[in-house]
Amino acid sequence: MQEIAGGTGLAFPVKKGQAVRLVNTFGQQVVDTWALSFGDTSEYMSVQHTIRMLYKLFPSKGDTLYSNRRTPMLMIEEDTFRGTHDMLLACCDRWLYKYYKCAPGHRNCRDNFLDSLFIAGFDATLVPNPLNLWMNVPVVDGAGTIAIEAPLSKAGDYVILRAQMDLIVIFSACPMDVLPINGEDRTPRAVHFELLETS
Amino acid sequence: MQEIAGGTGLAFPVKKGQAVRLVNTFGQQVVDTWALSFGDTSEYMSVQHTIRMLYKLFPSKGDTLYSNRRTPMLMIEEDTFRGTHDMLLACCDRWLYKYYKCAPGHRNCRDNFLDSLFIAGFDATLVPNPLNLWMNVPVVDGAGTIAIEAPLSKAGDYVILRAQMDLIVIFSACPMDVLPINGEDRTPRAVHFELLETS
Repeated sequence: MQEIAGGTGLAFPVKKGQAVRLVNTFGQQVVDTWALSFGDTSEYMSVQHTIRMLYKLFPSKGDTLYSNRRTPMLMIEEDTFRGTHDMLLACCDRWLYKYYKCAPGHRNCRDNFLDSLFIAGFDATLVPNPLNLWMNVPVVDGAGTIAIEAPLSKAGDYVILRAQMDLIVIFSACPMDVLPINGEDRTPRAVHFELLETS
Repeated sequence: MQEIAGGTGLAFPVKKGQAVRLVNTFGQQVVDTWALSFGDTSEYMSVQHTIRMLYKLFPSKGDTLYSNRRTPMLMIEEDTFRGTHDMLLACCDRWLYKYYKCAPGHRNCRDNFLDSLFIAGFDATLVPNPLNLWMNVPVVDGAGTIAIEAPLSKAGDYVILRAQMDLIVIFSACPMDVLPINGEDRTPRAVHFELLETS
């Protein structure tokens, strides 16, 4: 299993038919997740297209995740988690930590995305809104009020995402330490993943 | 008042302190709405940042709409509508109409955005997710199921959006004629707007 240290990101290719098994090793950790088409990075997994195609805010086992061209990119083949994954919120970025009065240079998912792609030999012309795995963002009333709450994920929870086309997948073990989205102790933790061959 | 024909778009500058009053002239019409920073079009109104900053899915009178750098771009100064505006769904695009088996060339909000910007002398490096004014996308249960429903807006409903920085604003009177989002008769209608000076 390959490790992604808490607060950092990693980008890697996944071929059509392969799958990624991502493990929330210690529990509670949110993982911001992106996918770009390997052949044309202007095609990206779009949560707002996915919400539209699925008619639901929270993706679950069996659901397809769509691109900005409404093409299937990933399928959630397995999911041990009984809570919800978030598709509503933008990733954390340097401006959010500035808003929270953190010192410049605070790690953030947006820069993890850009830096991981750079290290993998790619570049991005935009930062899509990610799928925020295990992020606990419930809709708490009929007026559409949302909350950003402590995580419900347990150590060993995992998802399997099956690639529907050749992809670059980017994970960021979210560095958020201001709000308790990664646990009340506000400590980002490592997660681990492995590639699975065709099923 | 300036007209935007049903199914078409328009881009125009709005200076800081000015406001746009947008009128749903005949009622029922959805208007996809974008804003870009006039000085740097890589800064754009981001509904997923706005949901995060407001802690709510549906913006209403008094709310600020934020950029991808978490900067206030527009403020909803007035809103006669008692229903909800949508910030969940991507705009319609050529791939959606292909999915619905429409002939190539069907008008769509994405191309309206790009074409309107071109006509105004700009270009876009990405197509942000818009604020879909008067689009009726309720969350219908606690599991996060959404619906895409017929509109509730009435003839003469209007919003006033006050610019918090120098902007290019883009409206698209949505061309959707497959689903009843613009009314059961599936007929896009004209809307009208005017610029208001500093309040």
